[in-house]
Amino acid sequence: MKNLVYDFDEGSRGMKDLLGGKGANLSEMKRIGLPVPPGFVITTEACLEYFEKDNQIFAELEEQIIDHLQDLEEKTGKTLGDPKDPLLVSIRSGAVVSMPGMMDTVLNIGLNDETVEGLGKKTDNMRFALDSYRRLLQMFGDVVLSISSHKFDRALEDLKNNYDIEKDTEMSEDMLKDLIEDYKDIIAKNSSQGFPQDPREQIMEGIRAVFDSWNNERAISYRKINNLPDDLGTAVNIQTMVFGNTGENSATGVAFTRNPSTGEDKVYGEFLVNAQGEDVVAGIRTPHDIKELDDIMPDVYEEFMEIVDKIEHHYKDMQDIEFTIEEGEIYLLQTRTGKRTAKASVKIATDLVSEGIIDEEEALLRVEPEQLEQLLHPSFDEKDIDEEKIITTALAASPGAATGKIYFDPQEAKKAKEKGEKVIMVRGETSPEDIEGMNAADGILTSRGGMTSHAAVVARGMGKCCVAGAGELVVEEESRRFWKDDEIYEQGEIISLNGNTGKVYEGEIRTSAAQLSEEFNQILEWADEVRKLGIMANADTPEDSQTALEFGAEGIGLCRTEHMFFDEERISVVREMILAGNRVERKKALEKLLPYQKEDFTNIFKKMKDRKVVIRLLDPPLHEFLPEKDEEIEKVAENLETTPEKVRDTIAELDEVNPMLGHRGCRLGISYPEIYEMQVKAIISAAAEVSSENSYEVRPQIMIPLVGISEEFSKLKELTEETAEEVLDNQNSEVNFEVGTMIEVPRAAFRADKIASNAEDFFSFGTNDLTQMTYGFSRDDAGKFLREYQEKEIIKRDPFTTIDKEGVGEIVKIAIEKGRQADSSLEIGICGEHGGNPPSIKFCHEEEMNYVSCSPFRLPIARIAAARAEVKENKNI
Amino acid sequence: MKNLVYDFDEGSRGMKDLLGGKGANLSEMKRIGLPVPPGFVITTEACLEYFEKDNQIFAELEEQIIDHLQDLEEKTGKTLGDPKDPLLVSIRSGAVVSMPGMMDTVLNIGLNDETVEGLGKKTDNMRFALDSYRRLLQMFGDVVLSISSHKFDRALEDLKNNYDIEKDTEMSEDMLKDLIEDYKDIIAKNSSQGFPQDPREQIMEGIRAVFDSWNNERAISYRKINNLPDDLGTAVNIQTMVFGNTGENSATGVAFTRNPSTGEDKVYGEFLVNAQGEDVVAGIRTPHDIKELDDIMPDVYEEFMEIVDKIEHHYKDMQDIEFTIEEGEIYLLQTRTGKRTAKASVKIATDLVSEGIIDEEEALLRVEPEQLEQLLHPSFDEKDIDEEKIITTALAASPGAATGKIYFDPQEAKKAKEKGEKVIMVRGETSPEDIEGMNAADGILTSRGGMTSHAAVVARGMGKCCVAGAGELVVEEESRRFWKDDEIYEQGEIISLNGNTGKVYEGEIRTSAAQLSEEFNQILEWADEVRKLGIMANADTPEDSQTALEFGAEGIGLCRTEHMFFDEERISVVREMILAGNRVERKKALEKLLPYQKEDFTNIFKKMKDRKVVIRLLDPPLHEFLPEKDEEIEKVAENLETTPEKVRDTIAELDEVNPMLGHRGCRLGISYPEIYEMQVKAIISAAAEVSSENSYEVRPQIMIPLVGISEEFSKLKELTEETAEEVLDNQNSEVNFEVGTMIEVPRAAFRADKIASNAEDFFSFGTNDLTQMTYGFSRDDAGKFLREYQEKEIIKRDPFTTIDKEGVGEIVKIAIEKGRQADSSLEIGICGEHGGNPPSIKFCHEEEMNYVSCSPFRLPIARIAAARAEVKENKNI
Repeated sequence: MKNLVYDFDEGSRGMKDLLGGKGANLSEMKRIGLPVPPGFVITTEACLEYFEKDNQIFAELEEQIIDHLQDLEEKTGKTLGDPKDPLLVSIRSGAVVSMPGMMDTVLNIGLNDETVEGLGKKTDNMRFALDSYRRLLQMFGDVVLSISSHKFDRALEDLKNNYDIEKDTEMSEDMLKDLIEDYKDIIAKNSSQGFPQDPREQIMEGIRAVFDSWNNERAISYRKINNLPDDLGTAVNIQTMVFGNTGENSATGVAFTRNPSTGEDKVYGEFLVNAQGEDVVAGIRTPHDIKELDDIMPDVYEEFMEIVDKIEHHYKDMQDIEFTIEEGEIYLLQTRTGKRTAKASVKIATDLVSEGIIDEEEALLRVEPEQLEQLLHPSFDEKDIDEEKIITTALAASPGAATGKIYFDPQEAKKAKEKGEKVIMVRGETSPEDIEGMNAADGILTSRGGMTSHAAVVARGMGKCCVAGAGELVVEEESRRFWKDDEIYEQGEIISLNGNTGKVYEGEIRTSAAQLSEEFNQILEWADEVRKLGIMANADTPEDSQTALEFGAEGIGLCRTEHMFFDEERISVVREMILAGNRVERKKALEKLLPYQKEDFTNIFKKMKDRKVVIRLLDPPLHEFLPEKDEEIEKVAENLETTPEKVRDTIAELDEVNPMLGHRGCRLGISYPEIYEMQVKAIISAAAEVSSENSYEVRPQIMIPLVGISEEFSKLKELTEETAEEVLDNQNSEVNFEVGTMIEVPRAAFRADKIASNAEDFFSFGTNDLTQMTYGFSRDDAGKFLREYQEKEIIKRDPFTTIDKEGVGEIVKIAIEKGRQADSSLEIGICGEHGGNPPSIKFCHEEEMNYVSCSPFRLPIARIAAARAEVKENKNI
Repeated sequence: MKNLVYDFDEGSRGMKDLLGGKGANLSEMKRIGLPVPPGFVITTEACLEYFEKDNQIFAELEEQIIDHLQDLEEKTGKTLGDPKDPLLVSIRSGAVVSMPGMMDTVLNIGLNDETVEGLGKKTDNMRFALDSYRRLLQMFGDVVLSISSHKFDRALEDLKNNYDIEKDTEMSEDMLKDLIEDYKDIIAKNSSQGFPQDPREQIMEGIRAVFDSWNNERAISYRKINNLPDDLGTAVNIQTMVFGNTGENSATGVAFTRNPSTGEDKVYGEFLVNAQGEDVVAGIRTPHDIKELDDIMPDVYEEFMEIVDKIEHHYKDMQDIEFTIEEGEIYLLQTRTGKRTAKASVKIATDLVSEGIIDEEEALLRVEPEQLEQLLHPSFDEKDIDEEKIITTALAASPGAATGKIYFDPQEAKKAKEKGEKVIMVRGETSPEDIEGMNAADGILTSRGGMTSHAAVVARGMGKCCVAGAGELVVEEESRRFWKDDEIYEQGEIISLNGNTGKVYEGEIRTSAAQLSEEFNQILEWADEVRKLGIMANADTPEDSQTALEFGAEGIGLCRTEHMFFDEERISVVREMILAGNRVERKKALEKLLPYQKEDFTNIFKKMKDRKVVIRLLDPPLHEFLPEKDEEIEKVAENLETTPEKVRDTIAELDEVNPMLGHRGCRLGISYPEIYEMQVKAIISAAAEVSSENSYEVRPQIMIPLVGISEEFSKLKELTEETAEEVLDNQNSEVNFEVGTMIEVPRAAFRADKIASNAEDFFSFGTNDLTQMTYGFSRDDAGKFLREYQEKEIIKRDPFTTIDKEGVGEIVKIAIEKGRQADSSLEIGICGEHGGNPPSIKFCHEEEMNYVSCSPFRLPIARIAAARAEVKENKNI
């Protein structure tokens, strides 16, 4: 005969699949000798059989339940329905994975019109007995009979109004008797079944209700959202009642074994004397701090402290526990891993290691890298936030907090910053022309664009707070203002942005800067020891490079060269180059750009010394560099000694319907080899110079973007090598450079063997573009429907944030397989936004990439995520 | 010992790999008893060994050559270098695949200062002997010693000027002697080697030159362009000379065994009496028609006719042959399959079948479907073309020819057409708003856009001639004119477009309409019997459907619904729908559209009867339907009782950076389910009505575009089925409809199993979009760099014309494999532009798709291409 029911004495935490989370933990506590009221668990298998048998509590199951109830009676010395000393139990659901949407708990089962009297007499507390009975009626009505709990609440309110009392505790025995009658009426009116007086029937109905709750709408939709299987079923826990409300010698409470907010190694919790669990939650009375238990019941407190110690050593983590003290006896009713702040998680993890409870690898598993993000950016002083002052809530595009005056024009923002003002840059959306303004800003707010819009990507790269896609706002850049509904916000007004929540507030909110704690650094050190993945940074400037080094980058995995073109001094030369009528003129303009570019690389190389620096040659379509505004067009025309008309013609000619799929990346290098030539010259001569002047060897890695055809790569590699050789021959020096490509066009994956066999030195996945092309989603335009897709549950996660393993990931796999097939030592990394996203980093680890590269401010997260991936692999988690 | 040299008697046509094309055919002719001058072939293997041994004619090879030369001396009774009766030979290269870039021929080898005298005496024709010698010197100098042939030509010119004669034939013996001295001087001055007097040395040097020519620049680049391997090597043919220039009893000529222009079964060729081959090519003397040979040498003519008959029966195809008559003896020097016009290919193929020479399957292999295109469209009267009148040459975007007055505005074009004018529509580029104008036009000319630009795609669909991307032209639509350089072309001026060549001419050129010949229809009939692939048409209107049926469509594989929205009557309702502020207003506008849509489908169903009609629900982004011009915006605002400002706001809001990757396809169906609902209602009610009123059952196939996520499909399939059921319940009728999806987003391929397992009825590959996303090429923007890519040999073929097997094809394969894995009976087709492209059709056949769908005018080509794919598979070609 199959075991469909397990006594708590028979289970353990390893039996979660069969006993559910709650049942397994109750068993486990029992197993290690903690005081748990006796009880048993009906297994998930029983639940599934119940479904198979058309939702019938089949004979075999019923038999086993009855057997276990008899055992319980023996153990407790009490009997179900005994009018003198009735056995009372609770019924709780307990799925394998906790599911908030499901039926939860019915307490005090076993009470009826008769046993309530016995309980009253036995405890010498008729009020308590009656209160317990009315609670049973309400819970049974609500949970088992599906009667709206509002009906019970209203009856209670009416009664209190009638008797003109305020608190539940003021109810007299008579009042409680009236209430019990009212509740019975409600049940009779709203249910054909009625409330069963037979305790066994109560139990069977309760079990049936828990089983059925597995298939209620909320549970189904919860599983759908969280991608949980429908065929697991739920366990049911039947446990002897203990009462915290039998008098001043009883109490009930909750506690964390350590402080969940700071992580401090002190028990943190509260309790209520003479109360039942729900009273603590309801917050009607102010509970005592757990330390006060020492004063009230010193023996119990001592025992409790021993329990805490035992349970933490056993579970090896901070626990969140529920307990009840009945007549001076303490009982544990639940334990689970306690939720904690980022700060606490770091402190607890490192403390547990120094206490010898866990090792470094375990510690890494105890910190959630995503959560740590908040420790890396400034944050609002919680007390200073006034939720009434919210202007709008939009996409939390880049974390952190910022307060400042709003500016709309990048130049004006820059000037304000120079005057020492705090600046919030507000735009419809940003473009590369706005970089200087964004650089000057403390926070960025846009009314259009999604998580991977220009504003969002650049802000994350800069480690600046950004709220994007605030569609409720109308931004009028020309008139320097934005409005929401009828409220107008003018330039210079102060607003505050929360990049963690996407909330925008009127007025100032105090912020405090981020500081990495000693414990955080300790965790990072452990991470670096464990991880296999290299961690590189996306950095375009010497300043970024400095930040990257401080945050532990091993090199630069993506240095974009286009941002270098937007500097005020250079942009006019860049435009001259683009508007040149022929190659000779273009080369002239490029000659002027060369010293600038060389200086850029020189300064970056000096920072990075002998670390690898992957430099991507020019990528965006040329029209991105051209002016849009009339005045700018006129200025350009003047500079170039031509007419605004001609400039406009060229702009129109270069305009593209789908710039994302247009004349950009290596396609530019094919059409205008002189541009790439200039860049390679700048890189190689800078590298030669810095190496010769210092004791280290600079290691530039030249990266060709957007390759989809192997000939694109071979042609441009040849160009690169020839140009480099020419430079080196002229200077009579040597530079150890490599040439590789970004894999960001789906086709590149299928041709990866061809591309790699062409003496490719490295691949770097540009998963932003790869995601765009694999889904056919433009990141500039998809914002509006991607949000809808998430709401309608068509996609679970934004594929621009977490790599889409099923589509994009498959393409990545093909590329790696084919690339390594052609060249088994091929170095492979990722430099898209996903490089800083923990689940994506795990994927990169699993696919045996060599490194991930992300924005400097994500580096600590990436280091930890990489280490966790390795630990999980080792532990087979 | 390995055979490095084969006598013609030892070879056959099957030994092409070893003997090269020429050598194998010479052997084959010999084998079947045709008169071929004796000789032998040095194998390609010998060539490769020569390369391996550092370009040395190694001992073993030399030995075998000498052995075969001795054989040749025995066979001919002549001896190399014999001063009385010297053996003379030709040396010709002969690669496996004909390579025009390589060294070709040296004739008259074996002549020297001594043997020239002997030849003169023996033939009693010293002039002939001297002329042969000076030719040898020139050819040897040019081909073996790499001396520019201009030097020899100049010497010849100087001599003729000195003696004041015009024709080569006027040269006397003395003059020729002078010329020989001049030539020797040139060789001595320009080569260290000099001209070898020893015939064997001549032969060895000639062989070495042929071998070396395999690696000359032209040959290498030819192989690169044509993707031929570099490691094949070339064979060398050494053949006894025969002379057509020994007197009036000799001649030389070329002939086709049938008329290569009409296909008529009459030998077509020409010859020159007393001449050598090069004279025929040079065109100095007017050759005789082959029939005149009957008068001049009746016996030879009779023999020649027998040879023609034999050779055609043997090769089972029309042959292009070279022959020489020496002293009344006819010799064949070459045979190869003759090139022919499309018309001739059809005629010859069907004639060969009726003559019992080949069977129907063979006939299908004898017509090149791409070539047949010219038979399906109007064409220019060749004699009426004046190449001086070319305005520009651009992309041959849609075949055919058209002459007419230029119009720039679609409405004006329409009016002109109604007045009976012939119209050429000229635009910068076209957009869906121009459809009516394009419909009215005989030809379309655009200054921007590539092979898959809107203009090109729509024109091909309409079967209209189109020249696109004429970048040299500046089109000013507002002022109704275009210009090239300083030349201005005003509205109403006449131009002519050749859609086969991309040429644009000033003025009128006479055109003649296409007509399918009886033979063509015969071929199509055979094709339909053989092919496995279904052939469907892309057709959006009843007119298109009619054309499709006439050209043999089995159904409609793609009926786009967006074109239906552009009709003048409807576009304002469409705009009302788009600009609606909420769902209620939108539904109101959709209600108004419903009867129009229903009528569209009713008329198409009536044409197609019980054939499948695959209808794609709305695909393009909504902003495509919005007006651009101020006047139109004002009109719309007036219609909608709103302000132009508000309309502009909505237009700006809907504007997208990359519309191709934006809010379109099924994404619209998710956001605005009411639009798809209306379309489904229209389809199903029309189908129910037509079926009930007729004896056939209409078979609508509803296709959801741009699916990349399986939930997109399942949600919209549900919507479709619910809507359809509602309609059918209301009407109390039944319709056998199916729901499927387009596979056009790369991700869809990787999720094809999920999508198909969702009760998917069919897949249809949208390879246009799939190509765009796989390469990251926007078809609107890629035109400019794709042309450059072809010029620079980065790509061989436009991937929008011929499917890219290595990238896009791999994705297609994955989708088919995964789709059929989930549902083995899944119907799979293709409806992109590739559906009408023969190599792509072959791919579809090989991948076991069920059908291809293409524009009506490509149907005959597709039918033949599909049949050929099957025949090739059966014959393992």
